[in-house]
Amino acid sequence: MNRNQITEKIVLARLAKGLTWQQLADAIGRPVVWTTAALLGQHPIPVELGNVLVEMLGLDRSVVPVLAAPPMRGGLPTAVPTDPTIYRFYEALQVYGGAIKELIHEKFGDGIMSAINFSIDVQRQTHSSGDRVVVTLDGKFLPYQWVSAQS
Amino acid sequence: MNRNQITEKIVLARLAKGLTWQQLADAIGRPVVWTTAALLGQHPIPVELGNVLVEMLGLDRSVVPVLAAPPMRGGLPTAVPTDPTIYRFYEALQVYGGAIKELIHEKFGDGIMSAINFSIDVQRQTHSSGDRVVVTLDGKFLPYQWVSAQS
Amino acid sequence: MNRNQITEKIVLARLAKGLTWQQLADAIGRPVVWTTAALLGQHPIPVELGNVLVEMLGLDRSVVPVLAAPPMRGGLPTAVPTDPTIYRFYEALQVYGGAIKELIHEKFGDGIMSAINFSIDVQRQTHSSGDRVVVTLDGKFLPYQWVSAQS
Amino acid sequence: MNRNQITEKIVLARLAKGLTWQQLADAIGRPVVWTTAALLGQHPIPVELGNVLVEMLGLDRSVVPVLAAPPMRGGLPTAVPTDPTIYRFYEALQVYGGAIKELIHEKFGDGIMSAINFSIDVQRQTHSSGDRVVVTLDGKFLPYQWVSAQS
Amino acid sequence: MNRNQITEKIVLARLAKGLTWQQLADAIGRPVVWTTAALLGQHPIPVELGNVLVEMLGLDRSVVPVLAAPPMRGGLPTAVPTDPTIYRFYEALQVYGGAIKELIHEKFGDGIMSAINFSIDVQRQTHSSGDRVVVTLDGKFLPYQWVSAQS
Amino acid sequence: MNRNQITEKIVLARLAKGLTWQQLADAIGRPVVWTTAALLGQHPIPVELGNVLVEMLGLDRSVVPVLAAPPMRGGLPTAVPTDPTIYRFYEALQVYGGAIKELIHEKFGDGIMSAINFSIDVQRQTHSSGDRVVVTLDGKFLPYQWVSAQS
Amino acid sequence: MNRNQITEKIVLARLAKGLTWQQLADAIGRPVVWTTAALLGQHPIPVELGNVLVEMLGLDRSVVPVLAAPPMRGGLPTAVPTDPTIYRFYEALQVYGGAIKELIHEKFGDGIMSAINFSIDVQRQTHSSGDRVVVTLDGKFLPYQWVSAQS
Amino acid sequence: MNRNQITEKIVLARLAKGLTWQQLADAIGRPVVWTTAALLGQHPIPVELGNVLVEMLGLDRSVVPVLAAPPMRGGLPTAVPTDPTIYRFYEALQVYGGAIKELIHEKFGDGIMSAINFSIDVQRQTHSSGDRVVVTLDGKFLPYQWVSAQS
Amino acid sequence: MNRNQITEKIVLARLAKGLTWQQLADAIGRPVVWTTAALLGQHPIPVELGNVLVEMLGLDRSVVPVLAAPPMRGGLPTAVPTDPTIYRFYEALQVYGGAIKELIHEKFGDGIMSAINFSIDVQRQTHSSGDRVVVTLDGKFLPYQWVSAQS
Amino acid sequence: MNRNQITEKIVLARLAKGLTWQQLADAIGRPVVWTTAALLGQHPIPVELGNVLVEMLGLDRSVVPVLAAPPMRGGLPTAVPTDPTIYRFYEALQVYGGAIKELIHEKFGDGIMSAINFSIDVQRQTHSSGDRVVVTLDGKFLPYQWVSAQS
Repeated sequence: MNRNQITEKIVLARLAKGLTWQQLADAIGRPVVWTTAALLGQHPIPVELGNVLVEMLGLDRSVVPVLAAPPMRGGLPTAVPTDPTIYRFYEALQVYGGAIKELIHEKFGDGIMSAINFSIDVQRQTHSSGDRVVVTLDGKFLPYQWVSAQS
Repeated sequence: MNRNQITEKIVLARLAKGLTWQQLADAIGRPVVWTTAALLGQHPIPVELGNVLVEMLGLDRSVVPVLAAPPMRGGLPTAVPTDPTIYRFYEALQVYGGAIKELIHEKFGDGIMSAINFSIDVQRQTHSSGDRVVVTLDGKFLPYQWVSAQS
Repeated sequence: MNRNQITEKIVLARLAKGLTWQQLADAIGRPVVWTTAALLGQHPIPVELGNVLVEMLGLDRSVVPVLAAPPMRGGLPTAVPTDPTIYRFYEALQVYGGAIKELIHEKFGDGIMSAINFSIDVQRQTHSSGDRVVVTLDGKFLPYQWVSAQS
Repeated sequence: MNRNQITEKIVLARLAKGLTWQQLADAIGRPVVWTTAALLGQHPIPVELGNVLVEMLGLDRSVVPVLAAPPMRGGLPTAVPTDPTIYRFYEALQVYGGAIKELIHEKFGDGIMSAINFSIDVQRQTHSSGDRVVVTLDGKFLPYQWVSAQS
Repeated sequence: MNRNQITEKIVLARLAKGLTWQQLADAIGRPVVWTTAALLGQHPIPVELGNVLVEMLGLDRSVVPVLAAPPMRGGLPTAVPTDPTIYRFYEALQVYGGAIKELIHEKFGDGIMSAINFSIDVQRQTHSSGDRVVVTLDGKFLPYQWVSAQS
Repeated sequence: MNRNQITEKIVLARLAKGLTWQQLADAIGRPVVWTTAALLGQHPIPVELGNVLVEMLGLDRSVVPVLAAPPMRGGLPTAVPTDPTIYRFYEALQVYGGAIKELIHEKFGDGIMSAINFSIDVQRQTHSSGDRVVVTLDGKFLPYQWVSAQS
Repeated sequence: MNRNQITEKIVLARLAKGLTWQQLADAIGRPVVWTTAALLGQHPIPVELGNVLVEMLGLDRSVVPVLAAPPMRGGLPTAVPTDPTIYRFYEALQVYGGAIKELIHEKFGDGIMSAINFSIDVQRQTHSSGDRVVVTLDGKFLPYQWVSAQS
Repeated sequence: MNRNQITEKIVLARLAKGLTWQQLADAIGRPVVWTTAALLGQHPIPVELGNVLVEMLGLDRSVVPVLAAPPMRGGLPTAVPTDPTIYRFYEALQVYGGAIKELIHEKFGDGIMSAINFSIDVQRQTHSSGDRVVVTLDGKFLPYQWVSAQS
Repeated sequence: MNRNQITEKIVLARLAKGLTWQQLADAIGRPVVWTTAALLGQHPIPVELGNVLVEMLGLDRSVVPVLAAPPMRGGLPTAVPTDPTIYRFYEALQVYGGAIKELIHEKFGDGIMSAINFSIDVQRQTHSSGDRVVVTLDGKFLPYQWVSAQS
Repeated sequence: MNRNQITEKIVLARLAKGLTWQQLADAIGRPVVWTTAALLGQHPIPVELGNVLVEMLGLDRSVVPVLAAPPMRGGLPTAVPTDPTIYRFYEALQVYGGAIKELIHEKFGDGIMSAINFSIDVQRQTHSSGDRVVVTLDGKFLPYQWVSAQS
C-alpha cells in the first residue's frame, strides 16, 4: 500500500470507528491541525506515533514505515480547488494576496513568510453576529539573503 | 482609464511619492489590509475616501467614480501564483487545505468560513528564533442551509 | 468503499431498481434537488436518512457513516463541462455572468449571493411555445463586511 | 473601435454619468438583465435602441453599427471565474450541476434547457433571516430529436 | 458496470464478433450515426433496442437499464482531440468557425444551429479526383429569444 | 499593420459600410464561406481579389500583400470556444466525434477526411418544424499510406 | 483487453523475450518505424501480420481483431512531452515550426505536408564529430483546394 | 523596439518588398531554414549579417544589436499549434514520437538527438503521385553520460 | 513606466550600449547572477545602486523608486519554459526532482532547501571533453518545524 | 508489471527494509543521485546492477529487463510541482531562469547547458547560520551549431 492508499484507508477507518481528529491528536500529543494534515498524507509521522495511530484505526502495522517517510506533498486534486470550504481560502488569496505581499514588504522588507517554519491554527470564536472561523497562519519571516556555503 | 489602469497608476504614484500603505490607510481611517487590497483593485472605495486618496496620490479626480464601483475581483495573474511571497500561501493551502476543511467540519459541522463577512490581518510578532509573519483569516461560519425566499 | 465508489454504486443501483430521484427524496422527506445532489456525492446525508436510502438501494450498511461525512465537493469531471445539459448553465454564466454581477451590486450593493445559505429548484412549466425548464437559484445576499472576532 | 473597446467605454461612461443599468433599460424598454448583458458586449443592440443608448452615454454615433452586429459572446476572462460574485454561480454548478441534469431528465426525458430561447431574472426578495438574491434561469426544454432537413 | 465500462465492452465485443456498425444499426432500425454514437456512450438506448443490441453483442442483460439512462455526454479524452481523423473536424472549426458564425447570422439573424434538434450524416461520395467524405450537420435554427414561463 | 490588425479593420469597415459577406463574395466571384474565412484571416487572398476587396472596404492598398500571404491559421481565441454559435459545433464533435471516426473507417478503411482538399457550405433549409442550418463538410478521403519520395 | 492494455503487454513481452523492434519488423516485412508505431498502438495491424506478431510475443490470439481496428491515435501522455528524447522534436517545432511553414509556402504555395500520405525514417549516420540521428519526415504536399463532391 | 516587435516588422517588410526567404538567405550566404528561423526571432543574427538584412528590408540600423543577441526562443503562440501546416508536425510527434524514441534507443542506446548541434532541411521532391515535402531533422546523438567538471 | 516596461528598456539599453552583465554587476559591487536577475525584474534594487545603473544605461531617474520596490516575481512567460537554454533546467527537474527530494530528506531529514536564503552561481569550467556549465544552487536547509509566535 | 508499477514497489520495499539510497548506490558502485533517479524510474539500470538491486529489495527477477530499458522519463505528477521540497527548484527557475540564460550566453555564447551529458550532486555543507543544501548542476556547454550528416 502506498501513501495515497493508506490515506484513503485512514479516512474511512476514522469514520467507521467514529473517532474525531481531536481524539487522534490527543492520543499522540500533537496539535490537531498537524495531526490531521499528517493523517491526510501531508507530513511524515514518526514511528512511535504511527504505531499508536495505526492501532487506534485498526490498520496493518506494515504501513508504519510508509507513514514515517516524508511524503510527496500537495493535497489538492485540482490546481484551483472545487470544494467550497477549501475554495474560500483560495478566493481570499485572489482578493488579498497582493495586499498581503505589499504589507509583508512594508513591515519586514523584501522576503517571505515561511511555510516550513510554520504553524497553523483553526479556532471557533464566538461573535454576536454568528460564530467565526479564525485561521491563523504563523510563519517565520525569511528575508531575501544572498548567502553561499563558501562565505 | 479603467480600473486596471488606475491600479497601475496608484502603484507607481505611491512609490514616486514615497507613501506607505499604512499612511494611506491612516488618511482614510480604514484597516491597512483593506486599504491596500482596495487600492490594488479588489474593493470599491467610497467616494469620500476616494477623494482623499486621489488627492494624496496626485491622480485625476475623474477616477473617483471608477474606484467607487465594485470591481471585477481576482488579483493573481496566473491561477497558481509565481511570486514566492504569495506562493507560500498557496502552498499552505496545498499542504493544509484538507486538514482545515476537516477541522471546520469537526468544530462547526458542514459549512464554510465566509470570505465575504471576513477580515484579514497581517502582523509582525517577535520570536526568539526570528520575527514571525502572523496572518489571521477571520470569517463568519456559514452552515450549509437549504433556505428559499418563499419559506 | 470511498465516497466516489459509493456514488457510482448508488447511480447503478437506482437504475437497476427503477427508482426515481423523486421517490428517493419522498422516502426521506427532503427536497428532490437536495436529495439528488447528496446521493451524487455533494452533501453529507444524516445517518437516519442514510439508513433509509441504503435500504431502498440495496447497499451495504457500512457506507452509512461515509455518506454522513461532509464530502469533498465538486462534481464536474472537467473545469468546463462537456455534457450539453450541464454545459448550457456554464454558457449562461459566460453570457450573463457579468450582468448578474452588475445587477446584484445595483440592487444590493457590494456583495454576493451565498451558495451555502442557498436552495435551488428545478421546475417544469408549461408554455404555449413549448414547456420550459425553470431553475431558481435562491441565496442569501451577503454584503462585503469587514468583521473580526475581536470586534 | 471594436466591440471590446466599446464595452469598456460604456462601462466607464455609465459610471461617469452616474446612470443605473435600470435607467438604461427603461430608456429602451427592454428587460434590465438583457440590457446589461447587451451593453457588456453579449448581445447585438438593434440600431434604434443603440442610438438611444449611445446618446445617453455620450458615445460616438459610429459605434452603433458595431453594437448592432451579433458579438463574439463569452464574457468571462478565465474559464473558471475569479470574481466571488460570479464564482458562486460556478460553484453552484459544481455542486448541483449533476443533480440538475438528472432532474431535467426525470421531469422531461433526454434533452436540455435552452440557453437561447431563454430569459434570466435577478430579484431581491425579503426574508426574515436576510434578503435574498433570487436568480431564475428560464429556458425552453429541447428534447434530443434526430431531425434532418430532408425528412 | 458503469456506462464507461459498458462502452469499452461494446467496443471489444463488436470487434470480436466481427459486426459492423451498420449491421448493429440495421438490427434496431435506427440511423447508423445515431446508433454508433449511442453505443459509444453518447445517447440513451431505449430498453427494447438495448435488448436487441446486448443480445447481438453477447453482453449481460443487466446493462440494459444503464444503457437506457441519459449518459454524461462528451466523448473526447482531451479538450483538443489528438486522433487525426477526429482532429480534422476540430481544425475545420479553427479555420472556418468564425465564418460559419458570420454566415448563420447573415442568413438567419442572431442565433445558433441546435446541436440537440439535430442530425448528422456521414457519406462516401465518388469524385474524379478521389472519393470524398461528406459530413452533414443539420440542426434547427434557434433564434435568440427572450422568453419566460410567465409571459 | 499585421494580419490580425487588418482583420479587425475589415470587420469594422464591413459593418460601417453595411456590406454583406455575400456581397463581398459576389464581388470577387468566390464561394461565400471561403470569402468570409479569408477576410477573417484564415486564407491568403490573391492580389487581384485583394485589390477589389480593399477598394470596397475602403482600406489602404498597402495591406494587399499581407492579405496575399498564407496566414497563421486558427481563429478561436480559446481552445474550447465560448461563443454559443461556434460552441455547438465543438459540442457536436464531443458527442459525435467518436462515431464519425468509426464510420469513416467502416466506409473507407483507415484514414481521414482532408481539411485541406476541402470545402464547406452553410445553407438555410426550410422545414415544417422550423428552418434548419445545414452545414456540409466535404473533404477528400485520405487513406493512411506509407509513401516515401525515394520509392 | 482494450488496445491500451494490449500495448502495455506488447511493451513488456518484447523486453521479456529480448526481441528488437527490427526483428519484429523483419518478421512481418514492414518498415521498422511503421511496425514500432503500430505495436505502440498508433496503427491498425492487419490480421495476418497480427497473427505473426502475437505468436512471437506470446500473446493471446484474442487480441488480433483489436490490433486490426484503427486505433484512437495520439501517443503522448501530456500535450507537451516530458521525455527528453521526445521533447527535442517538440523543441525543434518551437524553434523551427514557423520557418518550416514559411518555406513550405515559398516552395509549394499555400498548403501542408500530409501526415497521412506520409512516411518517416530514423537513421544513424556517421560523422567526424559524432554519429548523428537523422529523422526524415516525408509527406505529400497537399495544396489548399476548395473542392466539393458536387463539382 | 524589442525582438518581437522587430520580428513583426521583418515579416511585413519582406511582404511589402516582395522578397523571398531564399533571397534573404542568399544575400547573407546562410542556409535558408536557418535564415528564416533567425528572421522569425529564433536565432541571434551576427552583426555583419544583420547589417545586410536590415538594409535589404529597409529597417532602422538600431535593431542590429537586438538581432545579434540570443533571443528568448519558442515561436508557437500556443502549446499545441493551431495552424494546419505546423500542426501536422505536432501530429507526427503524437503518432510517431514513441516509435522514434524506441528506435533511437535501439540504434544508439540511451540518449537523444540534439536539437542544438542540429540542422534541418526542407525540400521539394517530385513523386509520381504528387510532389512531396521532405523535412530532414539531423542532430548529433548525445548519449546519457554522467560527467562532472571535476572528473 | 511599470516594472515590466522598465525591464524591457533595460534589456534594450544594455544591448544598445554594448554593456555586459558583468560590467553592470561590477559597477555596483554585487554578484553577477543577482545583478542580472534584479535587472530582469526579479529583485528590488536599492536606490543607491539603482542610481548607478540608471546612469550607465541612460534611463530616466524616475524609474529608481520603482526598481527599489520588491517586484512581483516570476520571470517565465509560460509555466513550462519554451526557450531551450532555460528548458534544460526544467528538464533536469523532471528527471532528477524526485531524487533530489529523497536525498535532501536522507541527508537532512524532512524539510527543504530555501530559495530565499539562497545564492546561485553560474561558472564556466574547462573539461577535456568540452567546457562545462556549472550552476550551483546553494540554499539554507529549513527543517519542517511547527513553531508559533505564542510559544 | 510496467516500469511505474515497479517504481512504486521499489519505493515501498526500500522503506520496509529500512535501506538508504546511499546503501543502494554503494551496493552497485554508482553515484547516489544517479541511483536514486534510476530507481525512481528515470534511467535504465544495466542488468548486472538490476540484479543486485532486485535482490536487495526482494523484488521478482522478472523486473530486471524492464529496469534495463530506457524509460519514458519525466517524474513530476503535475507541470508545476506541488511538493515544497521540489517546488523550490521550480521557483528558483522562475526567479533566476532568465539570468542564468543571459549569463550562459555571456560566458559561452549562444547555446545551452546539456542535461544529457550532465551530472548533478546534492551536498550538505555546514555554515555558521545553518547547514546548507548545495545542489550542483554540471552539464557540457553545447553551442548552437548548424551541422548536417552530409557536410
